[in-house]
Amino acid sequence: MSILSEAVQAELAKQAIELPSWAFGNSGTRFKVFATPGTPRDPYEKIADAAQVHRYTALAPTVALHIPWDRVDDYDALKRHAEGLGVELGTINSNTFQDDDYKFGALTHEDAAVRRKAIDHHFECIDIMHATGSRDLKIWLAEGSNYPGQADLRGRQDRLHESLQEIYARLGDDQRLVLEYKFFEPAFYHTDVPDWGTSYAQVAALGEKAMVCLDTGHHAPGTNIEFIVMQLLRLGKLGSFDFNSRFYADDDLIVGAADPFQLFRIVFEVLRGGGLNNPDVAFMLDQCHNVEDKIPGQIRSVLNVQEMTARALLVDREALAAAQRSGDVLEANRIFMDAFYTDVRPALAEWRESRGLPADPMAAFAESGYLAQIAADRVGGVQAGWGA
Amino acid sequence: MSILSEAVQAELAKQAIELPSWAFGNSGTRFKVFATPGTPRDPYEKIADAAQVHRYTALAPTVALHIPWDRVDDYDALKRHAEGLGVELGTINSNTFQDDDYKFGALTHEDAAVRRKAIDHHFECIDIMHATGSRDLKIWLAEGSNYPGQADLRGRQDRLHESLQEIYARLGDDQRLVLEYKFFEPAFYHTDVPDWGTSYAQVAALGEKAMVCLDTGHHAPGTNIEFIVMQLLRLGKLGSFDFNSRFYADDDLIVGAADPFQLFRIVFEVLRGGGLNNPDVAFMLDQCHNVEDKIPGQIRSVLNVQEMTARALLVDREALAAAQRSGDVLEANRIFMDAFYTDVRPALAEWRESRGLPADPMAAFAESGYLAQIAADRVGGVQAGWGA
Amino acid sequence: MSILSEAVQAELAKQAIELPSWAFGNSGTRFKVFATPGTPRDPYEKIADAAQVHRYTALAPTVALHIPWDRVDDYDALKRHAEGLGVELGTINSNTFQDDDYKFGALTHEDAAVRRKAIDHHFECIDIMHATGSRDLKIWLAEGSNYPGQADLRGRQDRLHESLQEIYARLGDDQRLVLEYKFFEPAFYHTDVPDWGTSYAQVAALGEKAMVCLDTGHHAPGTNIEFIVMQLLRLGKLGSFDFNSRFYADDDLIVGAADPFQLFRIVFEVLRGGGLNNPDVAFMLDQCHNVEDKIPGQIRSVLNVQEMTARALLVDREALAAAQRSGDVLEANRIFMDAFYTDVRPALAEWRESRGLPADPMAAFAESGYLAQIAADRVGGVQAGWGA
Amino acid sequence: MSILSEAVQAELAKQAIELPSWAFGNSGTRFKVFATPGTPRDPYEKIADAAQVHRYTALAPTVALHIPWDRVDDYDALKRHAEGLGVELGTINSNTFQDDDYKFGALTHEDAAVRRKAIDHHFECIDIMHATGSRDLKIWLAEGSNYPGQADLRGRQDRLHESLQEIYARLGDDQRLVLEYKFFEPAFYHTDVPDWGTSYAQVAALGEKAMVCLDTGHHAPGTNIEFIVMQLLRLGKLGSFDFNSRFYADDDLIVGAADPFQLFRIVFEVLRGGGLNNPDVAFMLDQCHNVEDKIPGQIRSVLNVQEMTARALLVDREALAAAQRSGDVLEANRIFMDAFYTDVRPALAEWRESRGLPADPMAAFAESGYLAQIAADRVGGVQAGWGA
Repeated sequence: MSILSEAVQAELAKQAIELPSWAFGNSGTRFKVFATPGTPRDPYEKIADAAQVHRYTALAPTVALHIPWDRVDDYDALKRHAEGLGVELGTINSNTFQDDDYKFGALTHEDAAVRRKAIDHHFECIDIMHATGSRDLKIWLAEGSNYPGQADLRGRQDRLHESLQEIYARLGDDQRLVLEYKFFEPAFYHTDVPDWGTSYAQVAALGEKAMVCLDTGHHAPGTNIEFIVMQLLRLGKLGSFDFNSRFYADDDLIVGAADPFQLFRIVFEVLRGGGLNNPDVAFMLDQCHNVEDKIPGQIRSVLNVQEMTARALLVDREALAAAQRSGDVLEANRIFMDAFYTDVRPALAEWRESRGLPADPMAAFAESGYLAQIAADRVGGVQAGWGA
Repeated sequence: MSILSEAVQAELAKQAIELPSWAFGNSGTRFKVFATPGTPRDPYEKIADAAQVHRYTALAPTVALHIPWDRVDDYDALKRHAEGLGVELGTINSNTFQDDDYKFGALTHEDAAVRRKAIDHHFECIDIMHATGSRDLKIWLAEGSNYPGQADLRGRQDRLHESLQEIYARLGDDQRLVLEYKFFEPAFYHTDVPDWGTSYAQVAALGEKAMVCLDTGHHAPGTNIEFIVMQLLRLGKLGSFDFNSRFYADDDLIVGAADPFQLFRIVFEVLRGGGLNNPDVAFMLDQCHNVEDKIPGQIRSVLNVQEMTARALLVDREALAAAQRSGDVLEANRIFMDAFYTDVRPALAEWRESRGLPADPMAAFAESGYLAQIAADRVGGVQAGWGA
Repeated sequence: MSILSEAVQAELAKQAIELPSWAFGNSGTRFKVFATPGTPRDPYEKIADAAQVHRYTALAPTVALHIPWDRVDDYDALKRHAEGLGVELGTINSNTFQDDDYKFGALTHEDAAVRRKAIDHHFECIDIMHATGSRDLKIWLAEGSNYPGQADLRGRQDRLHESLQEIYARLGDDQRLVLEYKFFEPAFYHTDVPDWGTSYAQVAALGEKAMVCLDTGHHAPGTNIEFIVMQLLRLGKLGSFDFNSRFYADDDLIVGAADPFQLFRIVFEVLRGGGLNNPDVAFMLDQCHNVEDKIPGQIRSVLNVQEMTARALLVDREALAAAQRSGDVLEANRIFMDAFYTDVRPALAEWRESRGLPADPMAAFAESGYLAQIAADRVGGVQAGWGA
Repeated sequence: MSILSEAVQAELAKQAIELPSWAFGNSGTRFKVFATPGTPRDPYEKIADAAQVHRYTALAPTVALHIPWDRVDDYDALKRHAEGLGVELGTINSNTFQDDDYKFGALTHEDAAVRRKAIDHHFECIDIMHATGSRDLKIWLAEGSNYPGQADLRGRQDRLHESLQEIYARLGDDQRLVLEYKFFEPAFYHTDVPDWGTSYAQVAALGEKAMVCLDTGHHAPGTNIEFIVMQLLRLGKLGSFDFNSRFYADDDLIVGAADPFQLFRIVFEVLRGGGLNNPDVAFMLDQCHNVEDKIPGQIRSVLNVQEMTARALLVDREALAAAQRSGDVLEANRIFMDAFYTDVRPALAEWRESRGLPADPMAAFAESGYLAQIAADRVGGVQAGWGA
């Protein structure tokens, strides 16, 4: 009998993790972007790669787009292309950080004309959402300043509110605005949405359809992220996750790679707060594959989330609550760690096979020859990258 | 003519910084508390020492008390004692971290009886506030856990809300509850009020008389504190400051000692947001004098705040706004730095003399012989310390 | 057949982790030290408690002493007491942070008389080492300053060298001096031995019998500790470990509690560099049990080290080296993680039983009734604490 | 009479700060590089821009080159070009991070052929040094890994030693090798030279002509950089500085912009240790001007260093030493801060004029019309950037 009870299996069967189209393009640091053979050259090829992840894992049924990187003439065609490959189009991400006009801000800019342009860009994104059937408009703002005195922090915050209000008003009834926060980078003195508190205050001022996006790499050193998960769920404002991992700053490594135990704690708190497989709380990846292969990097990532979810589901919550109530620190910790240290991989492999999936998706993909195929096929053209 | 205009002088004349009674007792680290001759042995002596700071600076007209450390039989007598020395009693600080019952929490404890005790302690504090005429009840909670799994983060947050609601309901019409947040310590895994967002969410749920207290040493490494100042002022929820400084964690050093430029930026943002000499935004010190003399340590601290306030008032805000509008990064930064680099000390010395104060309060206090006097007088008895 | 090969079992059988006598006394933060029933009142009782850890795990055959906390009249009697309980006396730790004379330094003090006193204290420690048969003199220095300008950084470093030279010269042929470094605390501006580089430079200047002690909690946020392990082993200067864990600063939590994967990486690097079960590289614990029971806290700790050692020994190093050579990032990481995710606990339980030990040492100790016994027996007297 | 004594003026007159050629090209983050009119298109134009900084400040007599970015056919011509503009060529910087072959390392690579290529690149740099008359070969290595297990930390360190030995052996008698360390980025798990200890251990193993380069932005959060300055000067191994500033990671902001007091402490420690205007300790800038104008950004930077040097020279070191000896914490800190808070800018303006320089170099450059001139002249061609 599996260590994964039927109830656990039922939860696992519901899990869905959205992939970012840009994870399949080249990415790197300010020092160098390394190219790899077979890198997609357009949104169609990115979606084809994303579909491979879903094919071997059944975990990644949707793909998020980034505008303008994934702008196409015919979104309906793109949608059909995705569906033909077994996936759907998901969240639409806006981009206000790669236009020269946005050097000193977009939604917060001193100049109303620049703000207009940035707001209109979000209107375009909402139009695309209608075409693609996407629910969420995700906004990450690169805005901020590099030097004390450079910017009027307060004025920018007020303008941010006004700009968001205009965008929010344009949302359809079933659409949401999800506002991401980030500690720093690319701005190095102040960032206009640097922490969950700011994101929360801004979306609370907008209304029910505005939520916070928590990117696991966007916090100050030492931040207890699962506490924020708990708090945002408690406040009813956790809209989505951008999963990745980091040792230092926003390293954008494979989720679970840097601190598996932190991922376990985060997923447990999602579960504890009713956020697991709750459509209001979207799970997404947001990573860079700078030195590793991209498609297997994404497969590894969704499997890491799945494995940690299985471990979190194994926590004996009744026993844990009893130990917590009695102040038995070591016993409560033991119960918690017991689930973390349980090796769920063999049971998950079996379970996958029982559902007609490969026991080892990484190996199955490697054996498929897909990487060699695209390396051969995708010669010529311009490789997509972060920013193209 | 002074570099301090009449308008600047008028602002400076209004400045008031509350002193913490516990700054005059011994303090230290978990490794050692060093004793010093002349350390106060009771609240009366602490207030006498605090009055010295005000005498030489005219900057510190009130003294905050800490209950139970400053519990006395007759608060009216203590009040008259203070007034006789030229100062008044200020904020009342509760303490739920030095009783064995609070090992696993106070306002958040799993056990209703412990929560009751902790809430009742706050009722006592409110009673004392009525006796002393204090406006603010300041709550810093040491609550949290050391090990993952030890505590139910969500349950504790909900219980915190309920406990605070009871305390809030007991406040008089002109009284306020001010909730402090802290990144970590004494809890080493999770803290129940770890960041401004949590404090804000909790006080917003209480009502208008509940505000956030910002302690400048209670943030994650790299946090942009002036941004939080801006945001809390914008949200109308910045109730008070605990000033101190730090290089690493909650070092509780003399304000301005570790990063004077940060103090400048904070005070500027207070000014920008309308919080300077605004009765709704209380300025307080919260420091430990582990290796330096305590009374001169406090004098140095209030002078540091005064000097930075003078510099912040010197910023040419019109020119700054123009440079910001035009995207002239270097010019905006120059205008900002120009005020910071201006040496306001000679002008402040002159201005002090014009008001009948010593030009150099540190020297005047040193010459007064007060330290030698209390060293001689205060022999025997038990020295007050952090925790007594 | 066990997943632990005979070679792995042979390594595990050799493992020895020294316990600190002070872990059995009360400890806490600057805010509060909570007392617990049954806390030892003298070195004899501390050793009795330490012997319990060894009894149930066979992992902790020695106990480190701290002078003056563990000063006794007759070290030979203490030695026999330990041996009677199945353990031996280990490292001697000096203490230069709890005497008023050391407020501004000990081995680095400006005043030669204070340095003399501190050096003489180390001579006393060496004398005790001769009495106890201890090999290592471990020096952790709390020295530093709180304010820029307070201290002459360079002069102190030079005096540190001179003081250490005198102490080093006094060592017996088979004795070693082990110098610990620490990022900060109790000093909050500068610490005289803040990093491995300083400790290394200082011990390298002394000679072959001087080594570095690496405390896993004594680094800046984000520091890659296993890299330092690698480097010190490479330089032949890793003398010992102080194991514990932390989320923030020097939290001194149970080893492996905060970041199990980091512990795995550290132990793997020890193994990779030839430091495992190498007498030159001593494994010790240095933790505080502030809220959890102390004896089971130590049992949990040595088991955590053992479990991680087993996992590190499971890494397929040949396959790993091949993947590294071929630049296969994901495969190398997979091989590494595979060992980490393997649940070694059932195999270790079996192996323990095969050696006449309890399968579950935590449960066996709990059932022994020892805690109730000492709570009943050790009434009256003064409980030992950090600093007594 | 100036507050700057003749002795201070004599020191200031000797100050020289090397400029990096790459500071005049475009730079940015991984998200976006903003272009600016007039950006140099080749090494000749970069040097012309650097000469402007020297012209208005007399502080920047040399320009560092980066190979291959500044590769030219005729280094003698470049040298004469520089001399014609009043400056000289300085340090040669190697680059092993922008070639696809170096994806998994250069001097540390598993493959001997890649190491050969990287070593040969350094031989080329040494050849260029002979042509340009440069003394220093500065090596910053981007090498490391992103995932635990990806790399053999120890093997890489050993190979690093071997590679450096080959390069070192090739140095001319009057040439030096300067090895920079960096906490993280572009590698996100381990970096092969992450800290001063590693750089020190590596250069100490090479010989007298190998030194450490300290980049002020390359440390873990909270690191006391002036302590490292002190230690490296004490060990005789501080070869050069890369000055810049940061709030978070390696932000590469204008030196002194983020924490002016830290810059003051660093310069003071240089002075205290005999490193000021000592030819063995080279002062250089290494910054990115992402949002501000580049030439005035460099002028601002060298002026910041000059102003802090003046302040550091104003410290009353005799009085400071006396206060330190007597344990008078507040007085020692006061003496130290007094120099920091002194406004040296008017005296420096006067002194500049007395030497035939503009009182306000920033204003003088702005009035010169140079920026408009190059914007008009440098149309067409490819703008130089970080990486070109």
